[in-house]
Amino acid sequence: METLRREGEAKTKELEVQKKELDKLKEQHQAHAEELLRVQTRANGTETKVEALRREGEVKQVAFSASLMSSGNHGETGPFNTHTPLVFRYVATNIGNAYNPNTAPVRGVYHFEFYIYGNGHASYSAGAVLTKNGEHIFIAYEHQPSHAANAANGVTLLLEVGDVIFLRQWQNSRIYDSRNRHTTFSGHLLFLM
Amino acid sequence: METLRREGEAKTKELEVQKKELDKLKEQHQAHAEELLRVQTRANGTETKVEALRREGEVKQVAFSASLMSSGNHGETGPFNTHTPLVFRYVATNIGNAYNPNTAPVRGVYHFEFYIYGNGHASYSAGAVLTKNGEHIFIAYEHQPSHAANAANGVTLLLEVGDVIFLRQWQNSRIYDSRNRHTTFSGHLLFLM
Amino acid sequence: METLRREGEAKTKELEVQKKELDKLKEQHQAHAEELLRVQTRANGTETKVEALRREGEVKQVAFSASLMSSGNHGETGPFNTHTPLVFRYVATNIGNAYNPNTAPVRGVYHFEFYIYGNGHASYSAGAVLTKNGEHIFIAYEHQPSHAANAANGVTLLLEVGDVIFLRQWQNSRIYDSRNRHTTFSGHLLFLM
Repeated sequence: METLRREGEAKTKELEVQKKELDKLKEQHQAHAEELLRVQTRANGTETKVEALRREGEVKQVAFSASLMSSGNHGETGPFNTHTPLVFRYVATNIGNAYNPNTAPVRGVYHFEFYIYGNGHASYSAGAVLTKNGEHIFIAYEHQPSHAANAANGVTLLLEVGDVIFLRQWQNSRIYDSRNRHTTFSGHLLFLM
Repeated sequence: METLRREGEAKTKELEVQKKELDKLKEQHQAHAEELLRVQTRANGTETKVEALRREGEVKQVAFSASLMSSGNHGETGPFNTHTPLVFRYVATNIGNAYNPNTAPVRGVYHFEFYIYGNGHASYSAGAVLTKNGEHIFIAYEHQPSHAANAANGVTLLLEVGDVIFLRQWQNSRIYDSRNRHTTFSGHLLFLM
Repeated sequence: METLRREGEAKTKELEVQKKELDKLKEQHQAHAEELLRVQTRANGTETKVEALRREGEVKQVAFSASLMSSGNHGETGPFNTHTPLVFRYVATNIGNAYNPNTAPVRGVYHFEFYIYGNGHASYSAGAVLTKNGEHIFIAYEHQPSHAANAANGVTLLLEVGDVIFLRQWQNSRIYDSRNRHTTFSGHLLFLM
């Protein structure tokens, strides 16, 4: 009887010890649950940011390069007595569907270059203007009375989605191109904004 | 009495079983705590790297594009009998405060292009030099005795923070610009280093 | 005796309560273990993507800029009666070992510009062609009978690893360069593909 009583007391103590440990474990478990939740929230945030960076890298793949004459063709364009859009028929590179029409697919800063070639002529220069939504930006223009002239210009512009960039031949200018590809127009996205 | 003794033994066994399970759970809990810590450390590292990538993307937004004459103005610049800095007064684009003064805001590789236009003249060429901290880098130069000349050059340079890039008009050259914007200067950051 | 029996019953209940809590805790623990595994798997995925983005940033550091004459030298190159590769001896910038030979180190979209300078001559133009694996891409060409001519062109191309880009002097053209660095060739990677 005394033995049973003492054993009973021991068990009571052991039960109390275990209860305390259980309670402590439950608390720690609760703390872990909260930590896990925090880590998952952080993982969500990081994954979103990484995906945004990755997609940005893809979206930034916008570039084109074209020359005036279609393959195998050559000849003069102009002179015209008004400013006339130039259509570049040989497309060397067109990534992100940037060329034709030259509409900005995303908001960002773009770089453009254009090289205009003309046979020398007393009356006709070789010239073209880069335009943004029809507005005159920069001109490439040279006039030689004989032989062969080459003009160039380049510009970097912040474009909104849908802004249209094209080259307009300068009035009374004459532009030549051949399969050698003198007269060219290139552009690419520098960065998103 | 015998019943109580047997029940006591059963409870002792059950207590031992629970104690073992508690100990096992405590061990597993400890293992989880360590795993959680590792995951948090990794999350810290990843977040730091993602933030660095994101900031790099922002810092890389450096680009300018300018032409020589302020809006509505036109005329000759030069000739001067010494090399003279060219100031481009019409700023088409200026992102990351890259232009005026042309001081590199971050260490990196930059691309520059410049297009120089001049009316033909027997004695005066059209020419300008891109300089880095006053040092001659590349020149754009053309000389036509009549009509209209266009010269261009471009360069890619690794710049330290504070390096200064500007264009210097070539001595005894004459540069023309108008609201058509022939004479232009553009630059942008390619990548950080 | 009755006391012992009642205490025994209380312990039995307490044991059952603790067992239930232990079982619940084990279940929760198991759930945490699974959550932790998911978080670790996500951390692995994110780290791999971030490392890929970081490496992509490094790999994209490809740019060169060169001029024709080695330091201190000047003179004419050509005319030659066949197309002849131009070797640019002054290397202003060469990052990612992009120049000499001009072999694409990674698959991607590259931008190139070239500026060709020539003294005027009744019979000799100034011209050079950018070639890709020997194929004619775009030409920079100008012909002035006197004084000084400057031609330029630029192109953006998707290159495979190992594609070779070089400039070929146009036949019967004459190209001049000096320590002023008129005749230059620059290129850089825009983005990987």
